[in-house]
Amino acid sequence: MQLSEFASLLAMQDNFLIITHRRPDGDTIGSAGALCLALRALGKTAWLYRNPEITDNYIGYVSEMLAPEGYRHETTVAVDVASEMLFPVGFGEEIDFCVDHHPSNTGYAKNALIWTDCAACGESAFELIKELGVTVTPEIAKLLYVAISTDTGCFCYGNTGSTTLRRAAELIDCGVENGPLNKRLFRTATKARLKLEGYIFSTLEAYHDGAVVIATVTLDMLEKSGATENDCEDLAALAGRLEGASVSVTITEKEPSLCKVSVRTGADVSANEICSRFGGGGHAMASGCTIHSSYEQAREQLIAVINEVMG
Amino acid sequence: MQLSEFASLLAMQDNFLIITHRRPDGDTIGSAGALCLALRALGKTAWLYRNPEITDNYIGYVSEMLAPEGYRHETTVAVDVASEMLFPVGFGEEIDFCVDHHPSNTGYAKNALIWTDCAACGESAFELIKELGVTVTPEIAKLLYVAISTDTGCFCYGNTGSTTLRRAAELIDCGVENGPLNKRLFRTATKARLKLEGYIFSTLEAYHDGAVVIATVTLDMLEKSGATENDCEDLAALAGRLEGASVSVTITEKEPSLCKVSVRTGADVSANEICSRFGGGGHAMASGCTIHSSYEQAREQLIAVINEVMG
Repeated sequence: MQLSEFASLLAMQDNFLIITHRRPDGDTIGSAGALCLALRALGKTAWLYRNPEITDNYIGYVSEMLAPEGYRHETTVAVDVASEMLFPVGFGEEIDFCVDHHPSNTGYAKNALIWTDCAACGESAFELIKELGVTVTPEIAKLLYVAISTDTGCFCYGNTGSTTLRRAAELIDCGVENGPLNKRLFRTATKARLKLEGYIFSTLEAYHDGAVVIATVTLDMLEKSGATENDCEDLAALAGRLEGASVSVTITEKEPSLCKVSVRTGADVSANEICSRFGGGGHAMASGCTIHSSYEQAREQLIAVINEVMG
Repeated sequence: MQLSEFASLLAMQDNFLIITHRRPDGDTIGSAGALCLALRALGKTAWLYRNPEITDNYIGYVSEMLAPEGYRHETTVAVDVASEMLFPVGFGEEIDFCVDHHPSNTGYAKNALIWTDCAACGESAFELIKELGVTVTPEIAKLLYVAISTDTGCFCYGNTGSTTLRRAAELIDCGVENGPLNKRLFRTATKARLKLEGYIFSTLEAYHDGAVVIATVTLDMLEKSGATENDCEDLAALAGRLEGASVSVTITEKEPSLCKVSVRTGADVSANEICSRFGGGGHAMASGCTIHSSYEQAREQLIAVINEVMG
């Protein structure tokens, strides 16, 4: 659907409930928060669904926007949610509007604005808010900046295009203090997180002439570091920092004989093929599986399979 | 000096020697390399001074531009060099041109283009190259992108303005493949570096209700990780990642009874005051000193002084 048509239809509604996805990240939270403020600026009533999985890292950005108990909405807007499977609960009704950037969007909404060439959903939310005629206040800009910067790893990931950077520049001109915000989002961590990263890095093992790297997160490391759920976001990305590694594996010990495994690969090796040998799967370049062994045994089994797959 | 005047004067010269600063970083290397290619595109002869301190991290970007032995230049251009003290050698002649962004530039050059509102010298080099009428090829754009992205920590540091982001966007439009380049510059590290970071993080200690964090880099850690000089860039920044720390101290054991200390602070505590107690000093928010003790003793002494200074 065209931006102008989508914006007009949205502006005709009221009493909005804005829906974020499960395990909410900065993009769904920032985009939803910005849209909520924009709708309110138009005189509408708008609240965010009280997603129970919002972590301490993001709750502060939207705590004043979470729907009060008993709120009765008339219009639903899902933001950055690719499929109904990713809703925090079943809403038992057709979703009215969807703003998203996932090519895999299942088309569940009556009216959808899906810009798959955007790095972040926040980019389409930004254009929508401008189309609605709302002034982008520093507060709205900050939420959109959180959305765009987190989904691009602070403009570092390969999804960052020149248009992404220009939109971020526009948000800074709207009053975002990007320096302090970046420091909080990307350059600070809890002591427990840093200790945990420390343990993980100090035990990295490389195989296959350095092309394969295996990181291990043990129960002992979690205990020694004092890490909680909040400290464990995206640990599977750490092993991929090793120079020259085209396959990075993270083994997380859940119980003494139960390990969750994440496999990430470059284009030349199939993560899905590796994980399917253990009854798991996923995408070609990012898959997962569960192995019922100790982490040492899981490592041995993984190396054997990877050696086979890589030939 | 105005950009147009500077560019015309530069274009009247030939046989250039382009000078980078000591301990060269991505900004001095990228800016110098881009300017070298731009001058060559104008039909000029241009080479970079063969700075002996270029590390493996950056040499690949300019290895074909290093002046051959016996090259006799007529015109010198210093790039990103704030003072003659930062030249890799004494050149024994007045420098003809200087392109820089440091407010502290000492004014050593006959003709200077100093844009202190730029995050990176690469930004002024970019504008200069366009003013010279040179087409910004993907190769030139890549070097300028290296300059700008490294000096801003991939657009994360507080010096990143909206103009910086727009210039980076323009460079991507000129053909920079920012994804793979960012991965190499910001998201890969050697195994030795990751292990070393691991050891440092796992031994972080916090004091003064978490406001002070002390990291230690011991000879033993360097040996166990196998880290070389190339792996030790900017280790003093690691401690500053700890949430809530307003004073971050890095103690590096150089010999069993000799430690180099780096102190970084927020605006409320003077790093200079802390370091001056040990005969060192520097800036208000970043200073250094040498302590002739074991690292354990150095830590005790530093804690005592910091407690005094913080009251």
